[in-house]
Amino acid sequence: MPDAAFGVDAGGTFTKIAFVTARGKILRMTQIPTRPQDGPAAFVGRVAEVLGAWRREGLRARALGFGVAGDVDHEGGRLRVTPNLPGWSGFRFRDAFQKRLRLPTVVENDANCAVWGAYVTELKRRPRTVIGVTLGTGVGGGLVVDGRLHRGATGSAGEIGHTQVVIGGAPCHCGNRGCLEAYAGKYGILREARRRLRAQPRRGRRLRALMAQGGPLSPHLLKLAADRGDGLAREVWERTGSLLGVGLCNAVLLLNPDAVLLLGGVSQAGRWILGPIRRVFAGWSFGTSVRAAVLRCALNAHGGCVGAAHLALEERPSR
Amino acid sequence: MPDAAFGVDAGGTFTKIAFVTARGKILRMTQIPTRPQDGPAAFVGRVAEVLGAWRREGLRARALGFGVAGDVDHEGGRLRVTPNLPGWSGFRFRDAFQKRLRLPTVVENDANCAVWGAYVTELKRRPRTVIGVTLGTGVGGGLVVDGRLHRGATGSAGEIGHTQVVIGGAPCHCGNRGCLEAYAGKYGILREARRRLRAQPRRGRRLRALMAQGGPLSPHLLKLAADRGDGLAREVWERTGSLLGVGLCNAVLLLNPDAVLLLGGVSQAGRWILGPIRRVFAGWSFGTSVRAAVLRCALNAHGGCVGAAHLALEERPSR
Repeated sequence: MPDAAFGVDAGGTFTKIAFVTARGKILRMTQIPTRPQDGPAAFVGRVAEVLGAWRREGLRARALGFGVAGDVDHEGGRLRVTPNLPGWSGFRFRDAFQKRLRLPTVVENDANCAVWGAYVTELKRRPRTVIGVTLGTGVGGGLVVDGRLHRGATGSAGEIGHTQVVIGGAPCHCGNRGCLEAYAGKYGILREARRRLRAQPRRGRRLRALMAQGGPLSPHLLKLAADRGDGLAREVWERTGSLLGVGLCNAVLLLNPDAVLLLGGVSQAGRWILGPIRRVFAGWSFGTSVRAAVLRCALNAHGGCVGAAHLALEERPSR
Repeated sequence: MPDAAFGVDAGGTFTKIAFVTARGKILRMTQIPTRPQDGPAAFVGRVAEVLGAWRREGLRARALGFGVAGDVDHEGGRLRVTPNLPGWSGFRFRDAFQKRLRLPTVVENDANCAVWGAYVTELKRRPRTVIGVTLGTGVGGGLVVDGRLHRGATGSAGEIGHTQVVIGGAPCHCGNRGCLEAYAGKYGILREARRRLRAQPRRGRRLRALMAQGGPLSPHLLKLAADRGDGLAREVWERTGSLLGVGLCNAVLLLNPDAVLLLGGVSQAGRWILGPIRRVFAGWSFGTSVRAAVLRCALNAHGGCVGAAHLALEERPSR
């Protein structure tokens, strides 16, 4: 039986559960609906049922890593605040999991888990300093400094999504205005696309055609439309990418990382999003740190589980 | 003879030279004109003359720390680029000092030195993560992560002054627009004050009176005018402080530090600059990290020398 941990990555809709070795391999994986409305205690119960069944089949883990979106009190094993899982704020996940499973549990922000998973498996822990950004419904982030996950004073480090790129700009889910997330999060991208579709009724023909075929507006549809030459879709990506470029440059100037890693669904828009980011990087003055940072997209979509499991193993080193 | 190093802090006009103990005490200090136009080799010669005289008096140092404004290649002991010392870019200070003085030499960005000096002497190395910002002609910065100076991939970390707070905003000395320095650096503050004095000829009475008494416009004069109730001067500080607040919040969201430290002349404007910063901090949503960060002004004006000396001692540990 290999040295291994359970990794759980709770998203707003689905939760991934995996059995992960210390070498970063996923030996078993499943997905369950999160059902946030049932509350966090019921959620812990349903995850524990899956893991209990796996244990009865003989899967042995020495720790559990749990990743969840929001401001996580890592020390206290508690989710402080979460905008996307109503009713879950304040819940003590570590206590709940440890009680149910009698397994040392680590609770961590989901973006930190995803970044750590990609750092361990894709970057092989080679670069010393990395800024990771998760592009999904929201925009999260995680920092690796000197080869270690940097959590900061309250475990809240890496929140690049809520840095302000436009003072007084578009409203963000967090309550502020002009956050990077308000432009580069899924809802920000779609808001911008809808605004342009309304304002320019004669443009976006290919995008409108794709939508007429039944697809609801989504980053994926915007990517398809851009691939097919739709000017409006390309402008949406241009704007998203260029604001993302500013947010990333700001972070790079502070941290001077070896690499910047993009993760999550929106990063799959490929050149449509990377192109404008690279243009912002290339045009930046005072740019030693900007030029030194290697920009790449993570490939593994299950990095959150792997990262959660690894953080749990590392916090509980085997003798 | 105590364990000690020489610390040199080269500014655009004056250079401070100090003999500093491993406990952070300055036992000897002097100041010479920098004279950038004479070139870096002549500068090294003049510093070496001072240190040579000190040595002949019996001051024994086991290393030299040299701090200078600009993008410093710490590994190579070289000043890569500097906007404020024309003709100095590319100079290999470590080689030059080592040849002249036969003393192990460390070359470091001046803001990193100032932040490290304040971290060692004022914060007593207690907080684990600190963002330091130097408010002078330019705006520099330095990061302490996990109790160590974070230099980053190319030694360029901490450049908060060139993070963009207003996309397409005021021109900055670095060539970009909208950098924090373009608003919170001395030249940005004075540009804003002059603009308001021109645009509002009936306002700023007390500020104009101070200027009529022969004082050229300066941050110090703006502070005096604000102290005396001048509305225009107070508005300049309000704008400076609120943009500084946004830049600092962005950095705090990324790094989640225990403390934010303001250093340098402009930080002496006290409540006029701290007030608006605190208001931005207080109004920030998603604010666990913003509320956790203790904001304070450094007191020691010679922190640059102390920090340079300490970085040199730490890089060359005594047995």
